[in-house]
Amino acid sequence: MTQQPAIGILMGSDSDYDVMVEAAKVLKSFDVPFEMIVSSAHRSPERTADYASTAMSRGVKALIVGAGAAAHLAGVVASETTLPIIGVPIDSSALKGLDALLATVQMPGGIPVATMAIGKAGAKNAGIFAVQLLALSDSDLAEKLVTSRQEMAQGVANKSDKLQQRLAADGL
Amino acid sequence: MTQQPAIGILMGSDSDYDVMVEAAKVLKSFDVPFEMIVSSAHRSPERTADYASTAMSRGVKALIVGAGAAAHLAGVVASETTLPIIGVPIDSSALKGLDALLATVQMPGGIPVATMAIGKAGAKNAGIFAVQLLALSDSDLAEKLVTSRQEMAQGVANKSDKLQQRLAADGL
Amino acid sequence: MTQQPAIGILMGSDSDYDVMVEAAKVLKSFDVPFEMIVSSAHRSPERTADYASTAMSRGVKALIVGAGAAAHLAGVVASETTLPIIGVPIDSSALKGLDALLATVQMPGGIPVATMAIGKAGAKNAGIFAVQLLALSDSDLAEKLVTSRQEMAQGVANKSDKLQQRLAADGL
Amino acid sequence: MTQQPAIGILMGSDSDYDVMVEAAKVLKSFDVPFEMIVSSAHRSPERTADYASTAMSRGVKALIVGAGAAAHLAGVVASETTLPIIGVPIDSSALKGLDALLATVQMPGGIPVATMAIGKAGAKNAGIFAVQLLALSDSDLAEKLVTSRQEMAQGVANKSDKLQQRLAADGL
Amino acid sequence: MTQQPAIGILMGSDSDYDVMVEAAKVLKSFDVPFEMIVSSAHRSPERTADYASTAMSRGVKALIVGAGAAAHLAGVVASETTLPIIGVPIDSSALKGLDALLATVQMPGGIPVATMAIGKAGAKNAGIFAVQLLALSDSDLAEKLVTSRQEMAQGVANKSDKLQQRLAADGL
Amino acid sequence: MTQQPAIGILMGSDSDYDVMVEAAKVLKSFDVPFEMIVSSAHRSPERTADYASTAMSRGVKALIVGAGAAAHLAGVVASETTLPIIGVPIDSSALKGLDALLATVQMPGGIPVATMAIGKAGAKNAGIFAVQLLALSDSDLAEKLVTSRQEMAQGVANKSDKLQQRLAADGL
Amino acid sequence: MTQQPAIGILMGSDSDYDVMVEAAKVLKSFDVPFEMIVSSAHRSPERTADYASTAMSRGVKALIVGAGAAAHLAGVVASETTLPIIGVPIDSSALKGLDALLATVQMPGGIPVATMAIGKAGAKNAGIFAVQLLALSDSDLAEKLVTSRQEMAQGVANKSDKLQQRLAADGL
Amino acid sequence: MTQQPAIGILMGSDSDYDVMVEAAKVLKSFDVPFEMIVSSAHRSPERTADYASTAMSRGVKALIVGAGAAAHLAGVVASETTLPIIGVPIDSSALKGLDALLATVQMPGGIPVATMAIGKAGAKNAGIFAVQLLALSDSDLAEKLVTSRQEMAQGVANKSDKLQQRLAADGL
Repeated sequence: MTQQPAIGILMGSDSDYDVMVEAAKVLKSFDVPFEMIVSSAHRSPERTADYASTAMSRGVKALIVGAGAAAHLAGVVASETTLPIIGVPIDSSALKGLDALLATVQMPGGIPVATMAIGKAGAKNAGIFAVQLLALSDSDLAEKLVTSRQEMAQGVANKSDKLQQRLAADGL
Repeated sequence: MTQQPAIGILMGSDSDYDVMVEAAKVLKSFDVPFEMIVSSAHRSPERTADYASTAMSRGVKALIVGAGAAAHLAGVVASETTLPIIGVPIDSSALKGLDALLATVQMPGGIPVATMAIGKAGAKNAGIFAVQLLALSDSDLAEKLVTSRQEMAQGVANKSDKLQQRLAADGL
Repeated sequence: MTQQPAIGILMGSDSDYDVMVEAAKVLKSFDVPFEMIVSSAHRSPERTADYASTAMSRGVKALIVGAGAAAHLAGVVASETTLPIIGVPIDSSALKGLDALLATVQMPGGIPVATMAIGKAGAKNAGIFAVQLLALSDSDLAEKLVTSRQEMAQGVANKSDKLQQRLAADGL
Repeated sequence: MTQQPAIGILMGSDSDYDVMVEAAKVLKSFDVPFEMIVSSAHRSPERTADYASTAMSRGVKALIVGAGAAAHLAGVVASETTLPIIGVPIDSSALKGLDALLATVQMPGGIPVATMAIGKAGAKNAGIFAVQLLALSDSDLAEKLVTSRQEMAQGVANKSDKLQQRLAADGL
Repeated sequence: MTQQPAIGILMGSDSDYDVMVEAAKVLKSFDVPFEMIVSSAHRSPERTADYASTAMSRGVKALIVGAGAAAHLAGVVASETTLPIIGVPIDSSALKGLDALLATVQMPGGIPVATMAIGKAGAKNAGIFAVQLLALSDSDLAEKLVTSRQEMAQGVANKSDKLQQRLAADGL
Repeated sequence: MTQQPAIGILMGSDSDYDVMVEAAKVLKSFDVPFEMIVSSAHRSPERTADYASTAMSRGVKALIVGAGAAAHLAGVVASETTLPIIGVPIDSSALKGLDALLATVQMPGGIPVATMAIGKAGAKNAGIFAVQLLALSDSDLAEKLVTSRQEMAQGVANKSDKLQQRLAADGL
Repeated sequence: MTQQPAIGILMGSDSDYDVMVEAAKVLKSFDVPFEMIVSSAHRSPERTADYASTAMSRGVKALIVGAGAAAHLAGVVASETTLPIIGVPIDSSALKGLDALLATVQMPGGIPVATMAIGKAGAKNAGIFAVQLLALSDSDLAEKLVTSRQEMAQGVANKSDKLQQRLAADGL
Repeated sequence: MTQQPAIGILMGSDSDYDVMVEAAKVLKSFDVPFEMIVSSAHRSPERTADYASTAMSRGVKALIVGAGAAAHLAGVVASETTLPIIGVPIDSSALKGLDALLATVQMPGGIPVATMAIGKAGAKNAGIFAVQLLALSDSDLAEKLVTSRQEMAQGVANKSDKLQQRLAADGL
């Protein structure tokens, strides 16, 4: 991406890439420039604080932050900037993401993290939500969002039509 | 509020008022005009759809939505608009808000709800997050957010100082 | 199905088909005509509301509704009709259906959703429950239900007999 | 009630009365005759089986069954009749009704229990759901249900109006 | 088994055999005669009640009962006899046996079910616990139990010795 | 109690008395002699091991063991004797007894703990279960158990009769 | 405290004082000098990082850190120092400390937080654990710990003796 | 290992080796001598008590203890010594380690167990935490810990660089 990134995507470990790439795909589909980096709340706290505290001055509008287990990354990033922070809990421990969800969403009063669903659905929605933020001052994006919604609704109808064939094939 | 509201606050039941008023207080403290209504996803679906689908054209920039139990309201509102939706799960059932949290945050890919913590902390943070969205295109609000953060940090230090007196009073 | 459907089966995504087909199989086995469609509470809200609000006038007697994650579909459908709604939570997220269960069953007072077990057992039971509703005014169906129960009980006894062979094969 | 009861309400303990009476109030408001008894799955199994197995022949159309803790009562009743069984999990143990919910809803394939929310909301909805069943063959009840829905929606709007006064009183 | 069975093993479905056979293996290893049958609380209630209510008169001393999901079987059996009932929750639903555990263990005051761990460990322990009951009036069994304990302790020590080889193989 | 105790009741803390006394009341009502002591798995391990390992030789037939939080006491006692151990999880932490339940019931294969419900219902049932064990070789106790069951069933019917008055008083 | 503190006690909010003072009491009882401050991971990140990163050079040997909800504080502190960090989850949200527990304990590989029980028991044990660390190189403390254990065991025996009086008073 | 072990690693079953070896690898990488044994709280209580109660006199400074299910081992070991005990919950039951976590961490006041995350991350962190304890009186280890932290932070940055290639390969 050679454009100035409008959205930053952070993840606590490169093993989170397969989930977080869903956010990147959405941003790409809306032609929203982004950057994606790995930085850990615990293993690289300075790097994380530096990235978060300078994001606004570099023109970034919002940060999408994914982490698993005791997922502190989104909260730590939120403590270093007043930009909107969108958190994605990742299912990477024995507890199936319940730990990451609670550690991301249960932020104390004062420092919000906008939390999405656990895993790929959440990462995809984080991308869409970031577009919704940008669309507040970008009417082209706002129109694209409306179009995207219409396509989604049409996609559901199409899938329903195809389902009839499966029913028939199953003799039902 | 006589100004055009920038933020709408919805709740599924008037019994959610004591929680959701925390969001209103934050908006008021930042001089952000808002409106607050009761509308149920289930008991008044038409009213809810009408409100959500017309919000954008009335100049509303984001909606804060609180609900308890099988908290569908934020998701239902999100299905009717491309505005950013901020969800607040409310602890109003035997399950202590775990049901409301999961019903709010676990949205399927396509329709995001930015979920905050259960209860008052979440409602307060919903208000702050709404301000953060508006601050993306309002430098005054952006400055106020920075000042607010500094005051929060100072408040923590002050409370720490006072704690020493409690310790002394307890002979510790 | 060329007959007027008595039961509608809805699912939020075509990926729910493998679960929801269990309901269809039961209805087929009782010769109850049904229809099956995909419609999302969030991605196609208008389609969902249209389907639900017109079902009664088309002669449908009850709706079986399956969804996963923040499973709002059954509740949303229930808000649009006074027909009995039977909900089937589907295990399609990291949380193993606990989210879908709570989002389906914890409906606030006023709008009931009759919730079945998570997954295939629930879909099968949704089919049986729909038959039980119809049987209230259809003595043939009522008799078939009694016969089906007797066959179930006999099936258990038969399986118990076969178990003795496994025990013997295991030297126990 | 001197009329032939159309609905039976069972509860596992008289301490469940305060919850289950919500179902009775709904039935009364729709002029649906009902009977209410205490019978335990475990402490009075014979009484429970007798009641359940004879309900259909006495003209009962559906049973509403509430129980707490390891809430077996609805399932046990369902095993004795092909009438529709509506289960209400009751919060009467340390686990806040999660045990009663899972014990009621997670029925194995073959014997459905239509489960409502934990506690009073669930009992109220059980009453409404029972009316919905009866309304399938009673057009008066069907009309009353539609009216009741309209009143609910109006009630929400009224509460929203009153909320504005609380906001004003709070200086918001 | 040609001897009069001292212990009955029940399971709700033949799919529970792989778990429940662990109890049978223990009983066999202690030369305790047993019988094993399938009977469902819900699909074959009469069969279950008959079996449970006649067990004592046939000389059975305790029943081991395994079931999954809304696991009512142990409680239903316990309601039909004053023999000691040992429950084994089985992990056969999306909720990983948490439902079966709560439905088995959270019995209301009056009718106890002695609950073991979820799954194979629980079935094995159910067998051992049954032997412990019989050993109260059978000194040979009591001695065998003591010997078995000593062998277990020795087995742990042996495994610890072998572990040193794995450590060495791993260069640690 | 001057008689040789047949049952020992242990609890990890004297704050568990109000729960565990329910077991004592049951034993007293069946004229079963018992002893009750406090001993902690962690704070008094030697006392606990001494008590458990000598119980059998003192004529004790089974031990009822209650503990809260990380409730190790029943398992530790079980490791020191081959007597039947009956565990009662106590709700004495923030997690409402879920921790105590899992720490008591999830015993690994080899050392069973017969676990009852959380709290008073569990303590009462522990007492009844202990009587059931003793009744295997005491026909008087066996008869008393049958009588007790009949009284329980009659008690349920009586409560159902009284419920009709509450209904009438509530105008239902 | 005029001595150089060996242990630092941090908490995220002054509302955590009533819990965290339990740690202070233990340290006081062992004559271990300590300091206690309030610092939030999110509201005062700089203050927290400063405190944690300079603790070692000021002679502090370990930090006890308490926080509730999405309890990031212990992890954030641990990321700034190689001193041992002892975490205390605090029950201050609707989820009863489950969120704080998971957010404290589920640290990813690389940065450990030694987590204690939720609430006062955990804070007390954090104090004892800190003493155990110091005792590794302080034989006086090591002896005091042994004495403390003996007193605990004696305390249990004393409470057991007193329990007999309650039993007698209850006629048991 | 021919050196006097400074750290003991215990596990309840040899099936825990694959998890607990992560602790051993860390200790090896810091040249900290250790020993590793299998001993069960329940199946070999005497062996466990002997090992724990003699560890201090053999020069061991801390014990790392891993166990699954009703994980009593760390607590039982802690009851036999005043050495610091580090607990590792292991995911070896249907409940995915939630049982082991609660049974390890929820220790009552008086006997602390420093609990790490469930599974391999926890075992690795147990090793690091043990090094942190030893580093309190070993400046070489303290320096190595600092170096290790710097390498971790550098590793994160390196992974972030490599991530850019994946992004490019995915056309993002």
